[in-house]
Amino acid sequence: MMKATKAWVEAQFPLIRHHASLVYLDSAATTQKPDQVINRISKYNRQEHANIHRGVYDLSQKATTAYDQVRQQVKYLISARRDEEIIFTKGTTESLNLIAYSYGMPMLSEGDEVVLSIAEHHSNILPWQQLVKNKKAVLKYLPVDIEGRIMESAIDTVITEKTKIVSVTMVSNAFGTLQPIASIIKRAHEVGAVVVLDGAQSVPHKKVDVKALDADFLVFSSHKMFGPTGVGALYGKYELLEKMMPYQTGGDMIEYVEEQTSTFAPIPQCFEAGTPNIEGIIGFGEAIRFIEQIGYDFIYKEEMRLTKYAYDQLSHLSHIQIYGPLNIEDRGPVISFNVEDVHPHDITTILDQDHIAIRAGHHCAQLLMKRIGLPSTCRVSFAIYNTTEDIDQLIESLKKVRKWLGYES
Amino acid sequence: MMKATKAWVEAQFPLIRHHASLVYLDSAATTQKPDQVINRISKYNRQEHANIHRGVYDLSQKATTAYDQVRQQVKYLISARRDEEIIFTKGTTESLNLIAYSYGMPMLSEGDEVVLSIAEHHSNILPWQQLVKNKKAVLKYLPVDIEGRIMESAIDTVITEKTKIVSVTMVSNAFGTLQPIASIIKRAHEVGAVVVLDGAQSVPHKKVDVKALDADFLVFSSHKMFGPTGVGALYGKYELLEKMMPYQTGGDMIEYVEEQTSTFAPIPQCFEAGTPNIEGIIGFGEAIRFIEQIGYDFIYKEEMRLTKYAYDQLSHLSHIQIYGPLNIEDRGPVISFNVEDVHPHDITTILDQDHIAIRAGHHCAQLLMKRIGLPSTCRVSFAIYNTTEDIDQLIESLKKVRKWLGYES
Repeated sequence: MMKATKAWVEAQFPLIRHHASLVYLDSAATTQKPDQVINRISKYNRQEHANIHRGVYDLSQKATTAYDQVRQQVKYLISARRDEEIIFTKGTTESLNLIAYSYGMPMLSEGDEVVLSIAEHHSNILPWQQLVKNKKAVLKYLPVDIEGRIMESAIDTVITEKTKIVSVTMVSNAFGTLQPIASIIKRAHEVGAVVVLDGAQSVPHKKVDVKALDADFLVFSSHKMFGPTGVGALYGKYELLEKMMPYQTGGDMIEYVEEQTSTFAPIPQCFEAGTPNIEGIIGFGEAIRFIEQIGYDFIYKEEMRLTKYAYDQLSHLSHIQIYGPLNIEDRGPVISFNVEDVHPHDITTILDQDHIAIRAGHHCAQLLMKRIGLPSTCRVSFAIYNTTEDIDQLIESLKKVRKWLGYES
Repeated sequence: MMKATKAWVEAQFPLIRHHASLVYLDSAATTQKPDQVINRISKYNRQEHANIHRGVYDLSQKATTAYDQVRQQVKYLISARRDEEIIFTKGTTESLNLIAYSYGMPMLSEGDEVVLSIAEHHSNILPWQQLVKNKKAVLKYLPVDIEGRIMESAIDTVITEKTKIVSVTMVSNAFGTLQPIASIIKRAHEVGAVVVLDGAQSVPHKKVDVKALDADFLVFSSHKMFGPTGVGALYGKYELLEKMMPYQTGGDMIEYVEEQTSTFAPIPQCFEAGTPNIEGIIGFGEAIRFIEQIGYDFIYKEEMRLTKYAYDQLSHLSHIQIYGPLNIEDRGPVISFNVEDVHPHDITTILDQDHIAIRAGHHCAQLLMKRIGLPSTCRVSFAIYNTTEDIDQLIESLKKVRKWLGYES
């Protein structure tokens, strides 16, 4: 592994170089791509493109090999056992829909319980609402405390012998709160339930080891970890994938097709109908290579340094309310806040005039917002291309907000 | 519109330039991309990337605008009435799954009939098999003649008052056969059924006008028309989209989320859950621009010229059997054939040694293959970057096939 330096890392992102005055603080929504990912996609398009799996000729076989190698990279990234345990989707939303349908439909019966948490992203709520409606099952929620953390004291009472599936995020996308995943997995496995982990805000920042965690499913998105949009990864234990029914059907996922029935291809092909996002998946492979080159240690340290610096600076502002964990180590690189008497959208608009890109809204987490008693917050989130200067600019801009709106301080 | 010349068009495709000795005859599986599409994706990645719809800041708003403009381009391309009638998916397979589920589930009752044809691609068979199983409905097939053409004489008897959905391809991907779409739509509408058109092999080659056809649904893929993989378009008449239930659920497609229920965003957002393939869709927009620059007239004439030339040359070979329409004007730019006593996979392998990329197999159309009495065929397919020299090389290489395998001629 190379020894990554901050200067080298910063220089890798053309969008950051291109917009000299931009302060991009929205990496929890989507990250920017390093040169090597963008160039890899272009090279594929310029020199290597062919449809995969069904072609005998050289170009198609090489594209198939390149595609399958990314499956292997994902396996190593999250320490899965087998290549076949990795399924490519178009993103975390599709991955969660796939699990809810393909695992939930055959495995759930009337009265069975599915457990989520109040801190989930909508993508980890709605597919389960659809499923329980379909199966006359019951949807329950783990409560969260004021910091957005699932209450450990509730785990044993909410997850019961009736629970068949527990689906929770590892890190709240809205507040950055790390969740007590180990306790949840332990309890779920005690009662025979499977656990789906939403790793969209986790895998980009820290090594996630599905074997060590004993995770049953893990889902995450390429575009939040320096890769292309339109690509997601779904990990499932092989023995669980074997119990699942297909999700989308069509070409490339069948064995024999008769007029009235068909037989399906083996795992993982049976879950990947149609021509996939080939160049996207190859770009995702390059994003994983980038992460491995610089190393999760570098990423984690750098992101924590930025988060701590931002938290400290924000805390010194007056009229500010910061949400989520007080303890920085209980967070991902995300800080949600509000400025007294100012609507988050106004803050975002004012900051945008200083070329500072932050997000405002419910962050696709309306249940959490309701729990905290807020319609919306501002959210800043960091990646390795951010600097303390970015945060200084954020703070300077925030200082002006209330004054611009006519408040005295 | 520019006046496209053959030399200019050929020079636009870097993969074709890069592999000087390659003869790429597999465009029905996927097309190569012109420089302007590849460069547009790179430029987006380098200068414009942000997550769309939910961002207030400038970069996100510009990305949202760029994304929404492609929806408008698709609308104009196929002469739809409204932007909202265009839904982005990850490809034709997903589009067909979406329609089968979102339209089929609420609109179909026990005993209702869904009509396909024997010439369909598996992606237009399996989603309907799943649907009729679910709804205890009936799946029926329009028969085809020896050229792979749906028999007009059967249309009135197979499509009846019980028929609720007819889903057919406009052009057979396996044989290139143009289907009698107008007669099918007329009959379907007589009995009150809706018609889904699989345009994956059509929209890349000829203007498709959904208003003139009175098509209810039309689906096609970006990657078969010079755009990226992982992007599909679904057209649906607005009044039909209003009757549909959501398919995938999650972020960006909701209005209000409660613990047990949610309300959905308006059309088309309610059908586009999660972060879409933003750079792919923007690349697709550039592919449409490319098609419009050179014009469908140029594309059609050039592809027909190549197809006619290839058909004539192939016909002069001995020991060859060509499938599909005798009349070239009844074809898309696709020719399927076999060489006597030689397995199609062996032909493909031998041709690959001469750097000629063709496809062999059942072409995801097992029902059609069975109808014709074949396990598989070789398939060549053309795009505007092909030349008569490509076809001459194909013919020279084919002449050697039987000799290499020990036959005297």
